[in-house]
Amino acid sequence: MLLDQITKANDIKKISPKDLKPLAAEIRQFLIESISKTGGHLGSNLGAVELTMALHLELDFPEDKLIWDVGHQSYTHKLLTGRKDGFAELRKYGGLSGFPKRKESDSDCFETGHSSTSISAGLGLVKARDLRGESHTVISVIGDGSLTGGMAYEALNNAAHLETNFIIILNDNNMSISENVGGVSKYLNSIRTADAYLDIKEGVYNNLMNVPKYGDKMVRGIQRTKKAFKQLVIPGMFFEDMGIRYMGTVDGHDIAKMVRLIRESRRINQAVLIHVMTQKGKGFSPAERHPARFHGAEPFDIETGLPTMQRVANYTDVFSTVMVKLASRDERVVAITAAMPDGTGLKRFRNMYPDRFFDVGIAEEHAVTFAAGLAAGGLVPIVAIYSSFLQRSYDQILHDVCIQNLPVVFAIDRAGLVGSDGETHQGIFDLSFLSSIPNMHIMAPKNKWELSDMLKFAVGFGAPVAIRYPRGEAYSGLAEYRKPISLGRAEVIYEEADICLIAVGSMVKEAEVIRKAIKEAGYCCSLINARFVKPIDEELILKASQVHKLLVTMEENVSSGGFGEKVLRLLTDIEAGVKLLSIAIPDDYVEHGNVEILKKEIGIDNETIIAEILRLAGAELKK
Amino acid sequence: MLLDQITKANDIKKISPKDLKPLAAEIRQFLIESISKTGGHLGSNLGAVELTMALHLELDFPEDKLIWDVGHQSYTHKLLTGRKDGFAELRKYGGLSGFPKRKESDSDCFETGHSSTSISAGLGLVKARDLRGESHTVISVIGDGSLTGGMAYEALNNAAHLETNFIIILNDNNMSISENVGGVSKYLNSIRTADAYLDIKEGVYNNLMNVPKYGDKMVRGIQRTKKAFKQLVIPGMFFEDMGIRYMGTVDGHDIAKMVRLIRESRRINQAVLIHVMTQKGKGFSPAERHPARFHGAEPFDIETGLPTMQRVANYTDVFSTVMVKLASRDERVVAITAAMPDGTGLKRFRNMYPDRFFDVGIAEEHAVTFAAGLAAGGLVPIVAIYSSFLQRSYDQILHDVCIQNLPVVFAIDRAGLVGSDGETHQGIFDLSFLSSIPNMHIMAPKNKWELSDMLKFAVGFGAPVAIRYPRGEAYSGLAEYRKPISLGRAEVIYEEADICLIAVGSMVKEAEVIRKAIKEAGYCCSLINARFVKPIDEELILKASQVHKLLVTMEENVSSGGFGEKVLRLLTDIEAGVKLLSIAIPDDYVEHGNVEILKKEIGIDNETIIAEILRLAGAELKK
Repeated sequence: MLLDQITKANDIKKISPKDLKPLAAEIRQFLIESISKTGGHLGSNLGAVELTMALHLELDFPEDKLIWDVGHQSYTHKLLTGRKDGFAELRKYGGLSGFPKRKESDSDCFETGHSSTSISAGLGLVKARDLRGESHTVISVIGDGSLTGGMAYEALNNAAHLETNFIIILNDNNMSISENVGGVSKYLNSIRTADAYLDIKEGVYNNLMNVPKYGDKMVRGIQRTKKAFKQLVIPGMFFEDMGIRYMGTVDGHDIAKMVRLIRESRRINQAVLIHVMTQKGKGFSPAERHPARFHGAEPFDIETGLPTMQRVANYTDVFSTVMVKLASRDERVVAITAAMPDGTGLKRFRNMYPDRFFDVGIAEEHAVTFAAGLAAGGLVPIVAIYSSFLQRSYDQILHDVCIQNLPVVFAIDRAGLVGSDGETHQGIFDLSFLSSIPNMHIMAPKNKWELSDMLKFAVGFGAPVAIRYPRGEAYSGLAEYRKPISLGRAEVIYEEADICLIAVGSMVKEAEVIRKAIKEAGYCCSLINARFVKPIDEELILKASQVHKLLVTMEENVSSGGFGEKVLRLLTDIEAGVKLLSIAIPDDYVEHGNVEILKKEIGIDNETIIAEILRLAGAELKK
Repeated sequence: MLLDQITKANDIKKISPKDLKPLAAEIRQFLIESISKTGGHLGSNLGAVELTMALHLELDFPEDKLIWDVGHQSYTHKLLTGRKDGFAELRKYGGLSGFPKRKESDSDCFETGHSSTSISAGLGLVKARDLRGESHTVISVIGDGSLTGGMAYEALNNAAHLETNFIIILNDNNMSISENVGGVSKYLNSIRTADAYLDIKEGVYNNLMNVPKYGDKMVRGIQRTKKAFKQLVIPGMFFEDMGIRYMGTVDGHDIAKMVRLIRESRRINQAVLIHVMTQKGKGFSPAERHPARFHGAEPFDIETGLPTMQRVANYTDVFSTVMVKLASRDERVVAITAAMPDGTGLKRFRNMYPDRFFDVGIAEEHAVTFAAGLAAGGLVPIVAIYSSFLQRSYDQILHDVCIQNLPVVFAIDRAGLVGSDGETHQGIFDLSFLSSIPNMHIMAPKNKWELSDMLKFAVGFGAPVAIRYPRGEAYSGLAEYRKPISLGRAEVIYEEADICLIAVGSMVKEAEVIRKAIKEAGYCCSLINARFVKPIDEELILKASQVHKLLVTMEENVSSGGFGEKVLRLLTDIEAGVKLLSIAIPDDYVEHGNVEILKKEIGIDNETIIAEILRLAGAELKK
């Protein structure tokens, strides 16, 4: 195996040119086999094999700096920097991350996970290099999908007229996670097709020179209008007009051509954008045919491309079904996604109500203010964004939706621990950042029926409201508890004495298990489903504080600004004498791995919670 | 006065065409006189007089929808919708807001304050209009400065290929608050100058037709390369390539021309961008000469243009001075602003260290990730962004700076109540949203020397750290308290018994006044300057909880997720028996007005705090 000859960074340079194509094939085969077992981002990595090889042939690591936008396409980079053995434990606790990580390798210079950050970070590294008198190369690789994110454009704007070298590689597969949308995609398309005309255009110019009498004058005329002339012959004029040198397009599966272009680009004292055309999923036909399905894939069968694990009904499915129902009943209902119709479950809605469905591209800021506009115009927009990506919209929620108290519904999937994607994707801050915003209302369902009920409630509510629900299987227990949703009202599941568990969303299911253990230990134990994190049910908690000796709040969110602190403040305000234990995620980032393992690591697994409750109960209940 | 004939929306249509120019002059005169007394945004409003008149001549209010990006240029719009009498109380508590407000007028359809939101909101209103079968016109007015903000671009991307009418007016004065920076500005400049060539270019095309024998062929050749041809003759090609119809440029002080262009644009079933050239400060020569100074002006003398109120030394001045010192001592120190070198006090730094100063334009997201890149490259970036605008960077702080634990220093001016700008500009959320972020450290200085000490500490700290300080006069009391800054350590100012005030930043000054009143009422009273909001000084607070009977936390921030909740959690964790009173801003937006009045309104003025403390002391200290 050629791949076995690569055990550390820069080893690829020892591979002979004729062996590069076979090496690419080996890498592809390795990625397909490896990801078929562990799951992971397949399509984007298959598309970037040759591009990564070209970069590693031309650059020196760790001296040169390479930043991968969103980072999930960095698998070949990991292979070429000696991390092949880690792939067996990819995305598992303690194993290789699915994203660049500085602690994994000094060839990972900047960590990514969210979209559209790489040009900003790269520009920072460029300026630092120059101020420190260093001379290495800095390259940011960004996909055309990520280029719909506004901050990429802010960075391009700032990279303009740089008088030093900075290379931006536009990895253009004409896809974000799903199909690309909007003007940028159209603009890039105009470049792609303009290439075909390039010969003709140059021909026009040359022919003009040959036109007797008039030709010369024409050319001079055209040269006077230098700007216009450049527009005639150069595609990527927008980049050029911004002051960024444009080079392209180049076949992203032709290693030699890319190496040449990268080498040339390094000599230019300016920001250079190299437009590379790649094919997502290249070399694995199921991924070529179904790019969205193989974006972030579960383990699959290589022959058929089908998942090897049984698919369980999850909250996304429930959301998907309910959204279609809501739309059929209320024509004010519209739906918005930021480039994730599949992931958020809005595909059915899109198919049935295309006019009322809006995919705005990877653009979470715009998505929210656009929704505010829709709401101001009399509609009821439901914005479906994952918890960790909604962090991008904090100001828009605060400034555009909530100051005006507009009826926007936030459907927040992947709230809580998400597992294998790690630090950048854990949805553990939303209860805190949303709670700090006046006029916001926050709910979390205990099971799949409650998600449905909450969505219905939210659509009729008439003010900003967020519903957060976790990744993975939709809980179908406690089906018989279905009291109508009422603003700021929690739901009593079991009413006893001694200890009272007050659980938020996903933690209700865990609280049931915990309660059993507590009862087995000889204590009485009530269980309240919080339902609302803002406003909290003050009346019920007040009552609970009188009847019980120990209250336990449980949430999958950091403690700072979360549900537990709200309950604590209330108990303090009313001078309740009851003891409060708040279970929440500690003030730290949570890495990748199986959710059950992660919970244990951070001390919010059931066993730890039970032990803590029994310890306190032993102390409190003897009083 | 012609202006007196306008007492409600649409009245301007009764003014005869020949009187429009005199009316514009009257409006300008009114604005200058009015703002010279109240203060307010002068330059941008003087620039937009004729543009606003043209819009009001062509549109019907409140049916048609007009969205003003950032909103501070809406004064003429307010005049033309019957709010002239309100200008005497502009930006005062209970008076006219300096921004569009839906409760003020049904001609204000969407509220703004932060930059770059108008295209998103307008697009939402357009989609809502069409889905509801309505037919009014929607126009978003955005400045060229706001166009550097990424979400404007996200929205343009989404507005591309719209098959319905949506008008975007680019109000181009070649300025944001300060001079514009970056590629967009350059690009717009290429359009501005291209205009001059337009005749020539069309001439080229016509001449080609006359070229015997070759001419025809040339033209056919060019027509085949239709894209390239369009680039030859149409400025604003980037917009066109995105699928947005571009019209311009037009003189933004020629009412008739603008009316014609707006009328034409309304007939186009597409997004149309009208490029209007205006002059900031037009008609008032001090504002024409010093646009940054007259952006948001204090009351001034009309003759000289000089402020009528004595300028007091503020925290921005301190920051300005210290930054230059820090830079001279440590060459790793670099500074970043998002289009506010004046407002943040970085002008001196820019002048002395131009290579180490970065103005990234109105682009708070990019600013922070760019800083992360600089820090990853070995520098110590200080990012100076106002509190309310830093909300835009929540995800970048969390995802790009703090996950990697990079040594970025956040200098957060305008933290706390800012007064006359109102809801959108109050800096009352930063302690909460920053606290929820792991690895973040947060400080607030009690006086000007402490801001200096904290900046020095932060530069040497080696991890993410934020320093928040308020608008207005820098406190120079308590000069003798200057114990060195130490991580997570508070500072004892007065050590007594009974009651202990623990104040954050700006509230230390207030706590001194409050303490005097408490002592006069016969109680002992300690005073602790918190210094750190994260991490809090657990040891000192624990000690205080043992010595005192009542602890009082004081902060200019919302209570949810703020300092008070942190102290409460600590006291609960250690099972302290002490009573805690937390003074913070209630869970609501705070409108515009004098800060002292606002404090009274929301119950955090000294009088209210004293009364509350004495009430509790009466109860607690008798125990």
